[in-house]
Amino acid sequence: MDEFLKKRVITFLTILFLVACCSVRRAEARVRRYKWEVKYELKSPDCYKKLAITINGRSPGPSIVARQGDTIIVELKNGLFTENVAIHWHGIRQIKTPWMDGTEGVTQCPILPSDTFVYKFVVDRPGTYLYHAHYGMQREAGLYGSIRVLLKEGESEPFRYDYDRSIILNDWYHKSTHELSLGLTSINFAWINEPQSILIQGRGKFDCNTVGTTTTLCNASNPECAPYTMTVVPGKTYRLRIGSLTALSALSFEIEGHNMTVVEADGHYVEPFIITNLFIYSGETYSVLVTADQDPSRNYWASAKIVSRNSTTNGFAIFNYYPTHPRRDPPTILPPGPHWDDVAPRLAQSYAIKARRGFIYPPPQKSDRTIVMLNTQNTVGGYRRWSVNNVSFNMPHTPYLIAYKHNLLHAFDQRQPPDGYDFVGYNIFAPPPNPNATISNAAYRLEFNTIVDIVLQNANTMNAKNSETHPWHLHGHDFWVLGYGLGKFDAGKDSERFNLVDPIMKNTVAVHPFGWTALRFRADNPGVWAFHCHIESHFFMGMGVVFEEGVERVGELPSSIMGCGDTKGFYKP
Amino acid sequence: MDEFLKKRVITFLTILFLVACCSVRRAEARVRRYKWEVKYELKSPDCYKKLAITINGRSPGPSIVARQGDTIIVELKNGLFTENVAIHWHGIRQIKTPWMDGTEGVTQCPILPSDTFVYKFVVDRPGTYLYHAHYGMQREAGLYGSIRVLLKEGESEPFRYDYDRSIILNDWYHKSTHELSLGLTSINFAWINEPQSILIQGRGKFDCNTVGTTTTLCNASNPECAPYTMTVVPGKTYRLRIGSLTALSALSFEIEGHNMTVVEADGHYVEPFIITNLFIYSGETYSVLVTADQDPSRNYWASAKIVSRNSTTNGFAIFNYYPTHPRRDPPTILPPGPHWDDVAPRLAQSYAIKARRGFIYPPPQKSDRTIVMLNTQNTVGGYRRWSVNNVSFNMPHTPYLIAYKHNLLHAFDQRQPPDGYDFVGYNIFAPPPNPNATISNAAYRLEFNTIVDIVLQNANTMNAKNSETHPWHLHGHDFWVLGYGLGKFDAGKDSERFNLVDPIMKNTVAVHPFGWTALRFRADNPGVWAFHCHIESHFFMGMGVVFEEGVERVGELPSSIMGCGDTKGFYKP
Repeated sequence: MDEFLKKRVITFLTILFLVACCSVRRAEARVRRYKWEVKYELKSPDCYKKLAITINGRSPGPSIVARQGDTIIVELKNGLFTENVAIHWHGIRQIKTPWMDGTEGVTQCPILPSDTFVYKFVVDRPGTYLYHAHYGMQREAGLYGSIRVLLKEGESEPFRYDYDRSIILNDWYHKSTHELSLGLTSINFAWINEPQSILIQGRGKFDCNTVGTTTTLCNASNPECAPYTMTVVPGKTYRLRIGSLTALSALSFEIEGHNMTVVEADGHYVEPFIITNLFIYSGETYSVLVTADQDPSRNYWASAKIVSRNSTTNGFAIFNYYPTHPRRDPPTILPPGPHWDDVAPRLAQSYAIKARRGFIYPPPQKSDRTIVMLNTQNTVGGYRRWSVNNVSFNMPHTPYLIAYKHNLLHAFDQRQPPDGYDFVGYNIFAPPPNPNATISNAAYRLEFNTIVDIVLQNANTMNAKNSETHPWHLHGHDFWVLGYGLGKFDAGKDSERFNLVDPIMKNTVAVHPFGWTALRFRADNPGVWAFHCHIESHFFMGMGVVFEEGVERVGELPSSIMGCGDTKGFYKP
Repeated sequence: MDEFLKKRVITFLTILFLVACCSVRRAEARVRRYKWEVKYELKSPDCYKKLAITINGRSPGPSIVARQGDTIIVELKNGLFTENVAIHWHGIRQIKTPWMDGTEGVTQCPILPSDTFVYKFVVDRPGTYLYHAHYGMQREAGLYGSIRVLLKEGESEPFRYDYDRSIILNDWYHKSTHELSLGLTSINFAWINEPQSILIQGRGKFDCNTVGTTTTLCNASNPECAPYTMTVVPGKTYRLRIGSLTALSALSFEIEGHNMTVVEADGHYVEPFIITNLFIYSGETYSVLVTADQDPSRNYWASAKIVSRNSTTNGFAIFNYYPTHPRRDPPTILPPGPHWDDVAPRLAQSYAIKARRGFIYPPPQKSDRTIVMLNTQNTVGGYRRWSVNNVSFNMPHTPYLIAYKHNLLHAFDQRQPPDGYDFVGYNIFAPPPNPNATISNAAYRLEFNTIVDIVLQNANTMNAKNSETHPWHLHGHDFWVLGYGLGKFDAGKDSERFNLVDPIMKNTVAVHPFGWTALRFRADNPGVWAFHCHIESHFFMGMGVVFEEGVERVGELPSSIMGCGDTKGFYKP
């Protein structure tokens, strides 16, 4: 082989090697590392200045964008002064890392000021997820953001789009979480009431005129509260990943004059259907496809309207057609949206969501255990509470996961909460009598790898002829949504109508006013998992439960989750 | 012995026994147990509604009243939602219980929400003391109260009075401590500014007209902000135990038309002297005797005026002569008090305070070590800071006491801070150049049982021709106040003028503008002790140091103080 040929061969082999290398590298899961500092900052997301909890100075915080199989490492420094934090990775199942779920009191002790806690977990499924504070009511202070998990490189979605965008919807309160929390936990009960504004991707518009001219707290021309602008190129199709992290509100989202095709819910493909407005409840995520197919010489309103309560005026953003100026208001008035009190279209959307053909995970055909959960308001010991089967949840201060693993069983009530309520005698259409309601931190223990059905049974609140919408969120699992109904769930008849063919899997689902929602999951993720109404104040007032499953299979717990409650007694120098 | 006599003898012996018993019981130290819950409450101490941190619903919190030698047990439940707490027992030396000093970061980890921490300590000396939050700037949120330690039963004071009363003076801010803390720790520095009002025993008067009529936050006729009334009986003498826990302000306290005789300072008897107004700095306590010897047909103003800063209008209370109506305003205008900028009378009071004859603890005639502490403002890394010898203190998140005892020495900077500054070259009358200022958590290690002199050297702030008053407070000890002076301390000449005859002992002492203050103490209390400016924002900005002494003599630390920083690594199930 002459020198020239030799060189060419070497070059060729080198290139081959590099190409091979890179291909391997491209398919490999990556470690994505984030350094975050949680801090107070004065923010004016809706023109009104408020002390918000931010990440790296921002609310919503930085987005996590990763690929399926990647490892996420978030070094979270608590830069608050006297307050702790914990962050939950909403929709991430934390398989083999149940201590990384970020649920204070369930999976970890809170993170103390000036401490750095390292969250490390794998994002094992593509889809649209969220993160947010899971401690007290800190989510309402602005501590939240989005997680976007892309397919592995080279893989493709079963639908086509040109661009991918994330939008978080939220409602916003001007009072501090401390003051709101105080009102909810006082005998002299003070409800949080309706939010002051709706935020789209962290921006809203509060009417500064309502607070008078003597204060400098509100400034309508603050650029921080200029509406969020989504610029689109005519003819292109956008995947909008829409998540809701409202404290309270159910929302209807729409883009004036544009249809939306629903393709994903909570990380699962949806058999596509077209809507003009998307109903979305706190804790849910959806991907919709929107094509910029309207007159490109103007802009359009995007709006978020509160439904289910007669509440705050709509939040809005600008759907901006390039090259129209992004700050140019649309020539139209804001779309009014659906009537707040019209439940029918919301039910219709819930019913419409099925797993996409070709991507159906068939549910087990029957369950090993059914827990019916009556959702009621109560007064317990003079305090206004929410409860499940007359048990109002309160968080112990030794996290369940640690307590179970290390036999600190005195840390919480060892009785099991009830699997049902008085199906025959209880009238779900009347305010609850419930003289036997209690406050407890008892937990459900599920047999490992069994199939569990949950039927959420809605009922009348303490106000006559009133029932609310509650989005329930399950940690550590997705569940099949087997069915919805109005009125009292009938175990015989209604379970025969369960969708066992193509139910969607989700992690958050609504139970509608005076209705029921049935879901099924496999208790196959060793750990302890919260299941609760995602309305932050409702969970704070007791609307939640905890499931333990296979905790004996959980590996050694990291010391970083310790330090509170009885885990201080572990001290052995 | 006949039956009758026998009975009488038995009766007599029984009585004798009971008398003996009771006498013993009377002299015995008692255990005094308190159950406190720390909670947020909406309070209007100065008519303006604010979220305050309260104890059992009150701010100031409940008073501790005990006798010398009693054991105090406070079961402190943290009822905040996401915030920790720690309470310092100001003036109690915590002999043999250094872990009960309540100084977060120095002697304990903070107390987590819903945790109950049991403080247990002996009040070994009679006198007037205080308690308050020692975590972040929570003191400013209202978490404070008074401790009154009486002589053992049967013992008597060297002065006569009829009644004993405690009054705490404070200044009050309407912004939350979170917002104030944020301003102080931002590159875009926001000073806390002057307080909105002065509180006397938790009551002040903010002018509601200044906030306009659009808000319901301020209500001038709220009974919570009716002035504090001290009712006196004509002719009687009152011991007023006056403590100051201002966030910032130096105060002058007076009772219109009444002289006051100073008899106690920080738990030590003072050679009595008569004043018309008492200058008092944050962290100090004084007992003054006041005789109700004026025209009893009217009331008199008590007033607290800010000195050393041209600040907020005076706080006031009503000195009410029984049976005049307690709500009847005095017929006079509020006494104007001394001019805010007149330093001379304040120096005069400092110089006047000596130990009372017959109660003099003679100081050691010389010291083993002298640490001169230059007090300056600096900008370090873009942040506005206070520093001592160019070192600005920051709190580590593993408490020193635990770190020293358990060799977690990586938890803080192991170098020792400097014992002095550039005495020759540094101009205390000019703004500091200080290009070499640093932020550090290094601590001073003092040889056990040695005599330590501290000379606090005041200097110009970063504003030309400005020097402030700083009250320095030492934990775990009383110190002898050896002298004060103006200008730069001269180690040769000035130390020869030290008062080694009858210096008062105190735990808090002021260094006056452009002046110096010398103090001496014996490092005989095994533990780790903070020494810092008692202006809460100044300490928060770095104006403090930490002393370790004889930590090897400290007994086993309770696990209840653990849980934070590196003490989580102690986890061994």
